[in-house]
Amino acid sequence: MSQKPSLPKGTRDFGPEQMGRRNFIFDTIRSVFRTYGFQPLETPSMENLSVLTGKYGDEGDQLLFKILNSGDFLKNADAQKLATKDSKSVLFDISEKGLRYDLTVPFARWVVMNQHAITFPFKRYQIQPVWRADRPQKGRYREFFQCDADVVGTDSLVCEADIILMINEVFEQLGITDFTIKMNHRKVLEGMAETMGAKGQEGPLCVAIDKLDKIGWEKVQEELAQRGFSPAAIQALEPFLNLDLESDTLLQKLESLMPQSEAGTTGINQLAEVLHLLKASGRTHLHLQIDPTLARGLSYYTGAIFEVKVNNVQMGSVSGGGRYDNLTGVFGLPNVSGVGISFGVDRLYDVMDELGLFPAAAHTSTQVLLAHFDAPTRLYALQAAGTLRTAGLATEVYPDLDKLKKQLNYADKKGIPYALIIGSEEMNSGNLTLKNLKSGEQNSLRLSDIPSFINTNA
Amino acid sequence: MSQKPSLPKGTRDFGPEQMGRRNFIFDTIRSVFRTYGFQPLETPSMENLSVLTGKYGDEGDQLLFKILNSGDFLKNADAQKLATKDSKSVLFDISEKGLRYDLTVPFARWVVMNQHAITFPFKRYQIQPVWRADRPQKGRYREFFQCDADVVGTDSLVCEADIILMINEVFEQLGITDFTIKMNHRKVLEGMAETMGAKGQEGPLCVAIDKLDKIGWEKVQEELAQRGFSPAAIQALEPFLNLDLESDTLLQKLESLMPQSEAGTTGINQLAEVLHLLKASGRTHLHLQIDPTLARGLSYYTGAIFEVKVNNVQMGSVSGGGRYDNLTGVFGLPNVSGVGISFGVDRLYDVMDELGLFPAAAHTSTQVLLAHFDAPTRLYALQAAGTLRTAGLATEVYPDLDKLKKQLNYADKKGIPYALIIGSEEMNSGNLTLKNLKSGEQNSLRLSDIPSFINTNA
Repeated sequence: MSQKPSLPKGTRDFGPEQMGRRNFIFDTIRSVFRTYGFQPLETPSMENLSVLTGKYGDEGDQLLFKILNSGDFLKNADAQKLATKDSKSVLFDISEKGLRYDLTVPFARWVVMNQHAITFPFKRYQIQPVWRADRPQKGRYREFFQCDADVVGTDSLVCEADIILMINEVFEQLGITDFTIKMNHRKVLEGMAETMGAKGQEGPLCVAIDKLDKIGWEKVQEELAQRGFSPAAIQALEPFLNLDLESDTLLQKLESLMPQSEAGTTGINQLAEVLHLLKASGRTHLHLQIDPTLARGLSYYTGAIFEVKVNNVQMGSVSGGGRYDNLTGVFGLPNVSGVGISFGVDRLYDVMDELGLFPAAAHTSTQVLLAHFDAPTRLYALQAAGTLRTAGLATEVYPDLDKLKKQLNYADKKGIPYALIIGSEEMNSGNLTLKNLKSGEQNSLRLSDIPSFINTNA
Repeated sequence: MSQKPSLPKGTRDFGPEQMGRRNFIFDTIRSVFRTYGFQPLETPSMENLSVLTGKYGDEGDQLLFKILNSGDFLKNADAQKLATKDSKSVLFDISEKGLRYDLTVPFARWVVMNQHAITFPFKRYQIQPVWRADRPQKGRYREFFQCDADVVGTDSLVCEADIILMINEVFEQLGITDFTIKMNHRKVLEGMAETMGAKGQEGPLCVAIDKLDKIGWEKVQEELAQRGFSPAAIQALEPFLNLDLESDTLLQKLESLMPQSEAGTTGINQLAEVLHLLKASGRTHLHLQIDPTLARGLSYYTGAIFEVKVNNVQMGSVSGGGRYDNLTGVFGLPNVSGVGISFGVDRLYDVMDELGLFPAAAHTSTQVLLAHFDAPTRLYALQAAGTLRTAGLATEVYPDLDKLKKQLNYADKKGIPYALIIGSEEMNSGNLTLKNLKSGEQNSLRLSDIPSFINTNA
């Protein structure tokens, strides 16, 4: 019995056209990472649940895909737990492994397992899929790709500067011109809480101000009040909002707003140092905006915080990152500081699609179809194909002895730009007819001249 | 509490050095597939169990990694089955999805789901990991990569010729010179069984003769007898063995050995036609050997059968493939013929490692480290780095203000070939010192001359 096959929800196939476009994004990011000295790492799709659980909060634990143990998986399961259908406690009896949820925890595991072989500072990039059992919706998938770059083993702010330069380079090479890199610092947020008279409360403060864009200042004030901030504290926050100033001026303003906070001063000085290093790089138009209300990843970021948005497009952040103090503490290796950035390829794809930014060449099609009239001209085509392939051209010999019209129709449907039509006359004279299938233009060429002709006219 | 993290058995991390080498293999195979007009496809890591089960035999069903349903997975499980710990029947109550076991079944599913959008003949390649819950051992992993190329929707033998040309091209580009492509045909095996007086018995025949290499002719005879072949039949098989002849002569010999078998004649004629097409291609040294005892994949191959072995290396086949008549029948789409080849990257890696064939350039390291003496020279280094990166050089600025010795030690350990050492004199004069860290040689160069210097001397 045959069944109609289907895909698991939240997952996707990528056909040739999408692959060409996705590879354009991957190749661009990979090439930028490479020129900044980052080296590739790949980790297995499955990790032991002991590595994964407890790292992403309760919600994350729920969203992990778990893999059933092989063989007679119920054999050692507790009968009482099975009888009460206690899924939570049965879980660890029947499953030891889960699918990768992000690239950071596997990287931390790798650093700990290879700590004696690694030369620090260590710069790695990693481009792999991750899986989350989230409710699928527009732009949210259960299997999606992350592109991460991290430097660990140094607290030099040169790394923060490098990250901002890399983001600029990636977006420029992708052709995205209107974007903003927001930068803030954990300690600036600490200083704000302190200045509000709510020292140590930057956690709840951030949860509330993170919603500024979505719900507005009125509602954020309500939420802050609910979270126990006093009216005076809330009033003291107001000067920090809507500071639409150039970076250096903004940092001076922040300094004047929290002169008493040691944390605040440290944060401001570090941001100023990053700006200083960036100026030295000589690169202008950095699309950089310091935003003291940027609040993400407070549970792990301890220094700089980054977020990138493409302007005038309906899409959340397409990239984010920051500095963390303690990547590997949970695996028993303390004091490994690092800073990293992650690009969301699926969102970048949608943005580029909406803006029409994919180059035509991103479509990875065959470049020349060799069409023929009969068995002898097909034999000749096989030989000609070898020459064209050696020159690097993606070349197909139409495999069947079909009518020319069918062969050209095939090329047309597949978006193959050129057909080399080989009849007995062409075969005997060596003067071959190359047809541009878009314009209809035909040229008579020697085989050896075809690669340069196509490369010049592509 | 911190734990010592570990990897699930049968899985591996790939650090920078291995990634460079693996990417050399992937890039080579991908580039050959591309020049033959194959287009990329990727499918999700997880498939519905209804797609996967029943496609790989009972053993394959056992080896599938199954994914536990999300949430309260026991809720709808049958209480009686749970009470008796009947793992097999509980399975489908608590798991709907599994991990990809090979690339063929997902490709077949994709073809069926996209049949109206695909232009046939369709040529796709697919390079992705697959997962099998096999007992791990040397060279056998639970997560490993396959590189497949298939043409579907045509029975033209041009495709078989293309596959042999592609195999030659891949091995040549990898630098593997001593290898053998064995080719046989399902119908030759049918003809052999017929000639032995055991028509239709090519299945058990193949199981036995597949072991010739391992256990020898004596033991194979015993096994054939056990499988019910008569002494006369076994004797009739003998002339087909050890036919160490050039391909054309061998086919003539086979013809003379089974003049009465229609199947045999068809197989021989098709093999002869493939040889004819290969000769037309003009490519010599094809490393091709027709082997009438090559017997693999009899449960799905219906035409040509391929297998590639690297000679003088202890390793099974590194590549295999063949023609199948009915790729998609199990999903309700009959009569889709195709032919494909699969390269096993993990085995190719081991072979190349043993033979010392990886080019030094496969190690993807930073090309230049910018070393400095203090904060001002580090600022200068940041600017210089931008120039070198724009020229495509993988460049790092040493991030911390450490002693020069430590910086050069870092470059040395990481295998970075060049250090650009920037002191205040160099910074002021613009005459920079580029040190080759292997030879110790130093050159005084202007910044703008460094990219071409490094590219020329690399």
